[in-house]
Amino acid sequence: MTDTDTAQGRIRLGMIGGGNDAFIGGVHRIAARLDDRYELVAGALSSTPEKSQASGKALGLPRIYDDFNQMAEAEAQREDGIEAVAIVTPNHFHAAAAFPFLKQGVHVICDKPLTATMDEAVALEKAVAESDALFVLTHNYTGYPMVRQARSMVESGELGNLRVIQVEYPQDWLTSPLENEGLKQAEWRTDPARSGAGGSVGDIGTHAHNLACFVSGLRVDRLAADLQCFGEGRQLDDNAHVLLRFEGGARGGARGMLWCSQVSPGNENALKLRVYGEKGGLEWSQEDPNYLWFTPHGEAKRLLTRSGPGANDHAAAVSRIPPGHPEGYLEGFANVYSEAADAIRAVQAGSSRSDAMGLLPGIEQGMAGMAFIQACVNSSRDDAAWVAL
Amino acid sequence: MTDTDTAQGRIRLGMIGGGNDAFIGGVHRIAARLDDRYELVAGALSSTPEKSQASGKALGLPRIYDDFNQMAEAEAQREDGIEAVAIVTPNHFHAAAAFPFLKQGVHVICDKPLTATMDEAVALEKAVAESDALFVLTHNYTGYPMVRQARSMVESGELGNLRVIQVEYPQDWLTSPLENEGLKQAEWRTDPARSGAGGSVGDIGTHAHNLACFVSGLRVDRLAADLQCFGEGRQLDDNAHVLLRFEGGARGGARGMLWCSQVSPGNENALKLRVYGEKGGLEWSQEDPNYLWFTPHGEAKRLLTRSGPGANDHAAAVSRIPPGHPEGYLEGFANVYSEAADAIRAVQAGSSRSDAMGLLPGIEQGMAGMAFIQACVNSSRDDAAWVAL
Amino acid sequence: MTDTDTAQGRIRLGMIGGGNDAFIGGVHRIAARLDDRYELVAGALSSTPEKSQASGKALGLPRIYDDFNQMAEAEAQREDGIEAVAIVTPNHFHAAAAFPFLKQGVHVICDKPLTATMDEAVALEKAVAESDALFVLTHNYTGYPMVRQARSMVESGELGNLRVIQVEYPQDWLTSPLENEGLKQAEWRTDPARSGAGGSVGDIGTHAHNLACFVSGLRVDRLAADLQCFGEGRQLDDNAHVLLRFEGGARGGARGMLWCSQVSPGNENALKLRVYGEKGGLEWSQEDPNYLWFTPHGEAKRLLTRSGPGANDHAAAVSRIPPGHPEGYLEGFANVYSEAADAIRAVQAGSSRSDAMGLLPGIEQGMAGMAFIQACVNSSRDDAAWVAL
Amino acid sequence: MTDTDTAQGRIRLGMIGGGNDAFIGGVHRIAARLDDRYELVAGALSSTPEKSQASGKALGLPRIYDDFNQMAEAEAQREDGIEAVAIVTPNHFHAAAAFPFLKQGVHVICDKPLTATMDEAVALEKAVAESDALFVLTHNYTGYPMVRQARSMVESGELGNLRVIQVEYPQDWLTSPLENEGLKQAEWRTDPARSGAGGSVGDIGTHAHNLACFVSGLRVDRLAADLQCFGEGRQLDDNAHVLLRFEGGARGGARGMLWCSQVSPGNENALKLRVYGEKGGLEWSQEDPNYLWFTPHGEAKRLLTRSGPGANDHAAAVSRIPPGHPEGYLEGFANVYSEAADAIRAVQAGSSRSDAMGLLPGIEQGMAGMAFIQACVNSSRDDAAWVAL
Repeated sequence: MTDTDTAQGRIRLGMIGGGNDAFIGGVHRIAARLDDRYELVAGALSSTPEKSQASGKALGLPRIYDDFNQMAEAEAQREDGIEAVAIVTPNHFHAAAAFPFLKQGVHVICDKPLTATMDEAVALEKAVAESDALFVLTHNYTGYPMVRQARSMVESGELGNLRVIQVEYPQDWLTSPLENEGLKQAEWRTDPARSGAGGSVGDIGTHAHNLACFVSGLRVDRLAADLQCFGEGRQLDDNAHVLLRFEGGARGGARGMLWCSQVSPGNENALKLRVYGEKGGLEWSQEDPNYLWFTPHGEAKRLLTRSGPGANDHAAAVSRIPPGHPEGYLEGFANVYSEAADAIRAVQAGSSRSDAMGLLPGIEQGMAGMAFIQACVNSSRDDAAWVAL
Repeated sequence: MTDTDTAQGRIRLGMIGGGNDAFIGGVHRIAARLDDRYELVAGALSSTPEKSQASGKALGLPRIYDDFNQMAEAEAQREDGIEAVAIVTPNHFHAAAAFPFLKQGVHVICDKPLTATMDEAVALEKAVAESDALFVLTHNYTGYPMVRQARSMVESGELGNLRVIQVEYPQDWLTSPLENEGLKQAEWRTDPARSGAGGSVGDIGTHAHNLACFVSGLRVDRLAADLQCFGEGRQLDDNAHVLLRFEGGARGGARGMLWCSQVSPGNENALKLRVYGEKGGLEWSQEDPNYLWFTPHGEAKRLLTRSGPGANDHAAAVSRIPPGHPEGYLEGFANVYSEAADAIRAVQAGSSRSDAMGLLPGIEQGMAGMAFIQACVNSSRDDAAWVAL
Repeated sequence: MTDTDTAQGRIRLGMIGGGNDAFIGGVHRIAARLDDRYELVAGALSSTPEKSQASGKALGLPRIYDDFNQMAEAEAQREDGIEAVAIVTPNHFHAAAAFPFLKQGVHVICDKPLTATMDEAVALEKAVAESDALFVLTHNYTGYPMVRQARSMVESGELGNLRVIQVEYPQDWLTSPLENEGLKQAEWRTDPARSGAGGSVGDIGTHAHNLACFVSGLRVDRLAADLQCFGEGRQLDDNAHVLLRFEGGARGGARGMLWCSQVSPGNENALKLRVYGEKGGLEWSQEDPNYLWFTPHGEAKRLLTRSGPGANDHAAAVSRIPPGHPEGYLEGFANVYSEAADAIRAVQAGSSRSDAMGLLPGIEQGMAGMAFIQACVNSSRDDAAWVAL
Repeated sequence: MTDTDTAQGRIRLGMIGGGNDAFIGGVHRIAARLDDRYELVAGALSSTPEKSQASGKALGLPRIYDDFNQMAEAEAQREDGIEAVAIVTPNHFHAAAAFPFLKQGVHVICDKPLTATMDEAVALEKAVAESDALFVLTHNYTGYPMVRQARSMVESGELGNLRVIQVEYPQDWLTSPLENEGLKQAEWRTDPARSGAGGSVGDIGTHAHNLACFVSGLRVDRLAADLQCFGEGRQLDDNAHVLLRFEGGARGGARGMLWCSQVSPGNENALKLRVYGEKGGLEWSQEDPNYLWFTPHGEAKRLLTRSGPGANDHAAAVSRIPPGHPEGYLEGFANVYSEAADAIRAVQAGSSRSDAMGLLPGIEQGMAGMAFIQACVNSSRDDAAWVAL
C-alpha cells in the first residue's frame, strides 16, 4: 500500500453514522484517510439532526445532513457529490441506509454484520443486484497482511488438503452487564431490535466465520451450535460453541470448531485462527497480527513476519513499512478501504464489478454471515442439532 | 516435595510393562525415583519372557519375572516383597495385570486410560472395591504445581461461578500414518484391540477431560462429539471436537469445548486449559507449565509463576526449586508418585483409603474417563447427538 | 487521539525529502494524515528538480518545488503558504533545509538524528533559538502509548528510585553488506558524509538513548562505548556496546547498558527498554508495543495493555481504539505529529514555545542525541574510556 | 539419557554440605538420582556435627559423618567406600572439602564458583593436578539439551564467524536487603568472607560467562566491568555491567556484553544467551529451556524444540522424553551428573581423565570463572578499565 496512488485523485466519501459516541465510525475515517485515497466531504453522522450537526461540525465536515435519505438525494444533485458512502450505524440501519445510495449508484462500504434481520438482508442483496454500485462489507480482519499470506499459502497447497480448522474470538467486555450501566456500545449490541437474533455470534462470530472461510477457501456446509447467555437479564447470546463441517478439504470435508465469547476475562479481542492440513499448519492471532506461525509437517516451526524473509507477495501488497515496525488494526482496516478505492476506480474505468472486487468481502460474504447467524440460533434452539447453511 | 520424607524408608516397587521400546515406562521409573520414595526391586517388563529378562537386566533389576501372574505370586511369598506395582503396559493389559496384585493387597499405580474396554473397566472397578490396596491412575497433568494452584483458586471462589471451560490437546505426531511404518508407539495406539474404542479421545482426550474436571471441580453432564479419522486407513479417531455441558457452574451449568487431535502440525503436546468465571479467568498451558495466567475481571492480567510471588500453598506443596528454575513433565509426574507414596504410608499406618488418596486420581477418575471415551464414540456414531455421562 | 480536533482546521504542511525511494517520507505523510490534523500542500521531495517533480506528481501535491530554498521563499509569499514543514532527508541536509523555514517562522518537524555533524547541530540550535517557530524532532518511539505510560509510572514513583536501565536496539538488515548492492537506504546510512560520525549509534542508538532518557526522566552523565564495524569494507559502526551512568537515581546514579546493532540475525527492529527501581520493574518492546510488563517488587508480573484495565490516562491520551485492537508504529508516529499540531495551534494562539512543546522531543533532545553520538565515537576511539556528555 | 546404563551398577556417592537449610544440596541429590546412576551412601551435610547428624537422618543416609575430613578418612578404609563426593557447601569451603577426597582418589563433583578466593583456587588446581580423580564443576546450565544444540550449531559453522555475544542473568531476589532479615541464602551470598570478592558476578555472573564461552567456543580475552552495589549496607556487587572482547570470532574478535543482576524486579532466574554470526543467530532463555530460536540470515526465524524436528543428536543425547513434554532445570542438572557417571566409569575402566571429561566443566572452567570474577572486581575498582583474563 502506498499513498502515491492518490495521483488519480481522492474518492469523495460520505458517512452515515459514526457520531460522537461511536467507536467504529472513527475507525472507518482513519482507515479511509490512511493511504490518502478518500476525502470525507459529507455525512449524516447520527440518528437525530442535532447530534448529526454537532458531530459533523466537530469533524469539520463540508456538508452535514440530517439523515441519510436527504443526503443521498442532495449529493446526487451535485456534480461533486460523493462517489462512495460508508455506513457505520448499528446493524438495524444498514439496509435502510444503503438503499438510497445504491439506487443513486453510489458505492457502499458497510460495516458488518450485513443487517439485523434476514429479511433486511434479502432486500439488501436484491438492491445490490439491481445497482451498478459496489457493495463492500468491512470484514476488516481479511485485510491483515499475514491473513492474506495465510490464505495464499493454503490456496497454493502448502498445507495440503485441509483437515482441521479452529477459530475462536473471545472477549471479556460483557462479563459484567455493562448494558445496564449506560454504555451505549453495550446497549445496542445486546438489544435484539438493533443487533438482530445473534449476540456474540453476530458481533464477533461472523468475523470468526468469515476469517475461517477466507483463509481456508472453504465454506461451512453444516454447523451445530450451543449458544449461551450468561449475563444477568441479557437477551442475546454472549458465548457460543459451534461445531463446523466444511465443504471440501480432506476425507469428506474439513472439520472445525468456532468459539466466540464476550464473557471470558483476560481476553480483549483475541480472534485466533488455526488451520491444519495434511502437509502443514498455520496459526495467526489478531492481537499480534504481524506474526504468522507456519509448520511444514516434520520441520521446525517458523515465525513468519510481515515484510520479513518468509512473507510473500500477498502480504507485501498490503504492507506499508519494514519488518519489525508493527502495523495494526487500523492498517488492516485501511487495506480494505484502499482496495475498495482501487475497485471503485476500476469500475469507474469500465471493469466488471466482480473483477474489481478481487478479495474484497461483499454482499456474498454478508449473506454467508447472515446464514451463519441464523444457523447458529436455529441449531441452538434445537439443542445443537446440525443445521445446513 | 522433598526427599527428606525418605526417612520412613523407600517403598518397594515392582513394574509391569515398560521394557526397552516403551516410552512411558521410563517416565514412571524417573517419577518414582525423583523424590527418593521408591526402590524398584522387581519387574515383568515385557510381553515375552525373553524381552522381559533383557529389559530387566538392562535396568539392573534385582528380581525379574516372566509375567505378571508369576510375579504377583512370588512377591507375595517374600517378606521383602513389593508394596506397590506400576502398570505401564498398553491399555488392554491394565486390568489383567492389576487383578493379581490387587488380590494380594499390593498397591497399584496404573497408567491411563483405565482399560481398553468398558467390560474390563467394570471388572477392575470391582476388583479395586474388593481389595484393601490403593489404586492410583497416573493422570499426571494433575500433578503440575500451577494446575494445583488453578484448582485451588477455582475452589476458593476467586473466579466466581464458572461459565466457560475450554480445553484442548492437539498433537501432530500422527499427521502421517506412522503406524504403517513400524513405530510401535503408533501401532498400538491406533489399534482398537489394544487401545480400545477411542483413538485420540482415549489417549489424550481423557487427559483433557480429566484436567478440565480436576481444575473446575465440575463433572461433565452431557457431551456431543464429532470424531474424525483423517489418517489413511486408520481405524480410530485422530481428531475430535466435543461440546461439553457441565453439572454446576453459572446459569444452569458451565459450558465448554474439548478438542483433541493427533494430526495438527506444529503442536507437540499442547494441552491447554482455560477457565472463565463471573469474576475472573485462568489460562494454563502444559508446554510452559511453570506459568499460570490469572485475570481478575477488570484488572490487568497477571503471570503467576511456580514458587513466585503469586503462587499459593497448593503450588508450593508440589514444588521443589525456586521460581525461574523450571520444573517440567517429569516433576509433575513425580508429584503423583510421591503423593502416592504418602498415601501408601498413610494406609499402612491405618488411614482410610479415601482419606489417604487426597487429590490423587484413582478408580473413580478412571471410570469417568472410560465413560467419557464411550460417550464420545457413541455421540459421534449418532452424528454428534448429546449423550449423558 | 481523535480526529474531531480537526474542527480547528488542518495545518498546511510542506515536505522536504521523502521522494520515491525513501522509506521514512511515506511514514511521515501517513503520520500527518492519520488524525486529520494536516494537509500536505507543498514539497521539494528529492535532491534533483526532476525527481522532485516526479515524486510530487505521484502524490498529487498541489505545489511542487525544485529545492527547499525556493520553496521557503515562495511559500512565505503566499497567504495560504505552509504553516509547518517536515524534513525527511538524509541527515546531512537536515540543518540546511531547516534554516530557511525557521527564518520564515515556519514550524519545523524534522527526522532524527538532528544533523550529520556537531557543527551543523550547533548552527541549527542557534537558528531555532533565533526563530519563533517550533522545532519538533521525530523521536517517534516516545509516541507509543505504553511508553507514555511507562514514563508516567516512573515519574509518579511507582518504581521508586531507579537503579538499572537496560536498553537495546538490535536489527539484522546490515548483516550482509547491502550498501555494496545498490540499496539506497543502506548506502547513505553507512556513508560518513551523509550520516555523520555514527553508524548504528546515530541511526538507532540515538533512538535507544532518547527512549531510555524519556522514560527514566534521567540524563546520561557519562558513557563508555565499544563500537564495532563488522561489515566488510564498512566505514561506520554497525554494532555498539555502551555502558551508561545516569545523573540521578538510586545510590549516586542509576547505571545502564545500551546495545545497538545492525548485524544481529533474527532481530528486525527490536528496540527494547527495561527499567528497574527499588520498588518495581518495567519492560517494553517496540515490536509488541501494546504491552507493558510491570512488576511491583514482591508481586506477580502484570501485563498492562494499551487501553486495558491497567492503562492510565497518559496512555489513553494517545490511544485511538479499544484494547486488543493493536495500534502500531504508524500510530505512535502519528501521536508525535498530532501533538505537534496541538503545539502549533497553541503557539499560534499565543502560548510560549516551551509550554506548547509538552512532551514533544525538540532541539534539546536533538542536541542530546548529537552529544550521545559524539561521546560514543570519542569513547570508542579511546578504547572505551569514560566520556562525559 | 536413560536409566538402562545402571546395569553397570550405581556409583557410591557421598555429600558434603546440603543440609536442611540448603537449596542446592537437594538439587544435587535429585540430579544424582534422576537417571539412577548414583546411590547416596554417606554425608557430612552441615558445619556442625549435630546438624549434620539431623540432616543425614532425615534423608535416611546409611553413613553420617561429623565433618569432611573424618568422612574422607573413614570412607577410604571401607571396601564399599564412596567413589565420588558432591561438595555443595558455601564457596569458602569448596577447596578445603575437596582436598582430602582428591588425595584419596575420590572423584569430586563441586558446586560453582570454584572457591571464594584466588589463593584457594590455585591450591585446588594444584590438588586436582596431583590427584588421579576427576573434578567436575556443576555449571549445570551447560547440561540443557538446547544449550548443547546451540554449541554444536556454532561449532559446525551454522552461524559463520561469530560477531556479537550477548549474555544476561538478571534476578530480583535481592531487591530488598533479605540478608538483614535472616534468610541464610542471602546471608552467605552477600558476605565476602563466605562468597569471595564477587557478589552477583560470582554467584550468577560466572554462570553467564561460562555459558557464553561454552556455546561460542571462544574465551574472553579482556573485559571492562562496572559493578554496582545498590542494596542498603551491602558489601558485594548486586548488579554488574560488563563489556567483553573475545579471542577469536569475526574481525579481530567477537564482542559482547554481560549483565548480571540480583536487583531487577520481574526477573526470577532469567539467564539468556544470544549469539550472532555472519550467517545466523541463536537465542536461548533458561526459563523456557526447551526452545531455541534459530535464524539463518535472510530466512524466517525457527523455533527449535527439544526432541522436535529441528533438534540434533547433541540435544537428543541429553534428552529423556518426547517434544512438548517439558524438561527443566533438574533434568539439565542431572545431565551433568549422568555424564559425570559415565566419566567416572570410563576412568575406572582406564580412560584418560581428559578423554573421560568430554564436555563436562571441570577445573579449567573453574579457574576461568575465578579469573572472570577477579577481572570484574579489578576492572570495576579501576573505573571499568580493560583487564585481561
